[in-house]
Amino acid sequence: MSVVVLQGSARAGGNTEELVELVLQDIPHTHVILRDHEIQPIVDQRHAEGGFQTVEDDYDALIQQVLEHDILIFATPVYWYGISGTLKTFVDRWSQSLRSQEYDFKSLISGKKAYVVVVGGDDPRIKALPLLQQLKYTFDFVGLSFEGYVIGKASKPGDIASDERALHDAKGLNAQLKAVLAVKS
Amino acid sequence: MSVVVLQGSARAGGNTEELVELVLQDIPHTHVILRDHEIQPIVDQRHAEGGFQTVEDDYDALIQQVLEHDILIFATPVYWYGISGTLKTFVDRWSQSLRSQEYDFKSLISGKKAYVVVVGGDDPRIKALPLLQQLKYTFDFVGLSFEGYVIGKASKPGDIASDERALHDAKGLNAQLKAVLAVKS
Amino acid sequence: MSVVVLQGSARAGGNTEELVELVLQDIPHTHVILRDHEIQPIVDQRHAEGGFQTVEDDYDALIQQVLEHDILIFATPVYWYGISGTLKTFVDRWSQSLRSQEYDFKSLISGKKAYVVVVGGDDPRIKALPLLQQLKYTFDFVGLSFEGYVIGKASKPGDIASDERALHDAKGLNAQLKAVLAVKS
Amino acid sequence: MSVVVLQGSARAGGNTEELVELVLQDIPHTHVILRDHEIQPIVDQRHAEGGFQTVEDDYDALIQQVLEHDILIFATPVYWYGISGTLKTFVDRWSQSLRSQEYDFKSLISGKKAYVVVVGGDDPRIKALPLLQQLKYTFDFVGLSFEGYVIGKASKPGDIASDERALHDAKGLNAQLKAVLAVKS
Repeated sequence: MSVVVLQGSARAGGNTEELVELVLQDIPHTHVILRDHEIQPIVDQRHAEGGFQTVEDDYDALIQQVLEHDILIFATPVYWYGISGTLKTFVDRWSQSLRSQEYDFKSLISGKKAYVVVVGGDDPRIKALPLLQQLKYTFDFVGLSFEGYVIGKASKPGDIASDERALHDAKGLNAQLKAVLAVKS
Repeated sequence: MSVVVLQGSARAGGNTEELVELVLQDIPHTHVILRDHEIQPIVDQRHAEGGFQTVEDDYDALIQQVLEHDILIFATPVYWYGISGTLKTFVDRWSQSLRSQEYDFKSLISGKKAYVVVVGGDDPRIKALPLLQQLKYTFDFVGLSFEGYVIGKASKPGDIASDERALHDAKGLNAQLKAVLAVKS
Repeated sequence: MSVVVLQGSARAGGNTEELVELVLQDIPHTHVILRDHEIQPIVDQRHAEGGFQTVEDDYDALIQQVLEHDILIFATPVYWYGISGTLKTFVDRWSQSLRSQEYDFKSLISGKKAYVVVVGGDDPRIKALPLLQQLKYTFDFVGLSFEGYVIGKASKPGDIASDERALHDAKGLNAQLKAVLAVKS
Repeated sequence: MSVVVLQGSARAGGNTEELVELVLQDIPHTHVILRDHEIQPIVDQRHAEGGFQTVEDDYDALIQQVLEHDILIFATPVYWYGISGTLKTFVDRWSQSLRSQEYDFKSLISGKKAYVVVVGGDDPRIKALPLLQQLKYTFDFVGLSFEGYVIGKASKPGDIASDERALHDAKGLNAQLKAVLAVKS
């Protein structure tokens, strides 16, 4: 069992990264920082002659790397009540992966475990719920199992340290993850 | 009163564009096709020294154009149960606009009317509801008034023509828009 | 194919009833007005010795009547952003039906078509969306197919007549229902 | 500062009650067990001549008791993806309270703090989210401040004891409540 973080944050050292660190304390993991890579928006060629054309960017390498792991942590600030554009652009490209001839995306991703870590400034424990519902539908579509989430409240860098509830929840998720990793490894 | 479409679709002539055409039949409007422009993901510099740096892309010109209109139509395919990455990336940049020294974004956008046209393939009348809730929170944040929406069901190009319910709803929204435009112009 | 309305409204001649009438114009149907019947809140005996005890009220007769139909219209005012307590109390009793020895509730209700008609006073096209999501989960659990909904905005008796959008939508649903009834009967 | 639980559970000693006990460990509180009282469904007389008629049941005494407290814990099993019919019927009667001549319901309830404890059997951390959104709208309407929630997963009596996550979360909410009570008392 191995863990990968899909980091959708738009700044280094922000609250989302900080909360993820707590969630993954003492847990080895790969950290895929999406903003450090070039990912093109999808061009919808599902119904185009010849299907999807190869895109020259970092997406293929990244998704291959993600698929090598068993537990996926989707980490994102709540931007405008959704996942960040960076993470959304990445997920949109799954439509291309679903039609790839080179690998069977759905059977590869299906059965893996997904967790979500989100941090928002505006009442995220309520206003990020549609975001969670959207991810739930997404996970269901590809057969990911939605195992848990933590919601943090923070705006300015460092704010997360004073969200007692989020710190407590992160610890809970950390314990849950360790239990999963121990049982199955 | 003038109308602008924020088109988040990832292909030309797709179902979302077709449904928008029905919604706007005989209504003059500006069509901003986001995929034809370069829009960088936001780099979150809200809390960086010096604030946001100028970004060399098409965003500023586009948002200026949008703000010249009174009625905003957010048109997007339902991608992975959310708005398209293209539209999300555009909306994320509002965080930069909110801190612009050059114009008062919030007071300019506040009070305008927003409508949403979405088309999805997987039970969109239910599974696009989190998307609508997310946009509702977004509109509330900047003072846009959420006046109505139409949900279409379609996957392959042309499918929308057989979604009787969406065609009927588009007609209804078309009438509603005409009433608004006549009353206020 | 036959149609039954599960009417959750708490007053006669209210907006919900009026909107249902438009939805069912020229369509024969049975109208089950829940407020006219005695329905006890569920006593949860799922795990009690001996299971559920027989309850002396109108529930059993009503659910039997409902199950004789193929199309179920759930009609309810939006009370406190949910279905009315009257309708909720009725649905809660399904837990008892699920364990009945006298009939196989799940196989009887499964496969039927469900439609929802709701009328609320406070921004129902947005604020009734959680209500629809809740019903969607409910329908999924018992195998009802969620075929469509109409949302009306009204408070005072008669208000619904000035919600042009709801009237238009009701007409659309009426046509949809007629198509379904004609095709399958 | 004093605490009252609005208990919507339909059986004694169930998982919801057990989880509430953990949330309120060492915190004095009043426990209003709704199922032990007679509460009639609302008869909507908002627009009737003469307004609402007095109803001979326990509602008035209960709401008076609730309003004497500062912190309201809404505790309910997730029944059919919503609050229990018993709790819903109670909340529906608020519409009557809002028009009462005898007390100013809105100004009395406004400003109090609300917490929610829910326990469901079917993926409640996702499928109870519409329930939370519905309560959020409800709280907003009357000016209650939605301060936090705990979601537990359990079906059979005693199940909750093996939901590590819920036990951990309950402890977190317990600490949060103690902090609130200490600070303000």
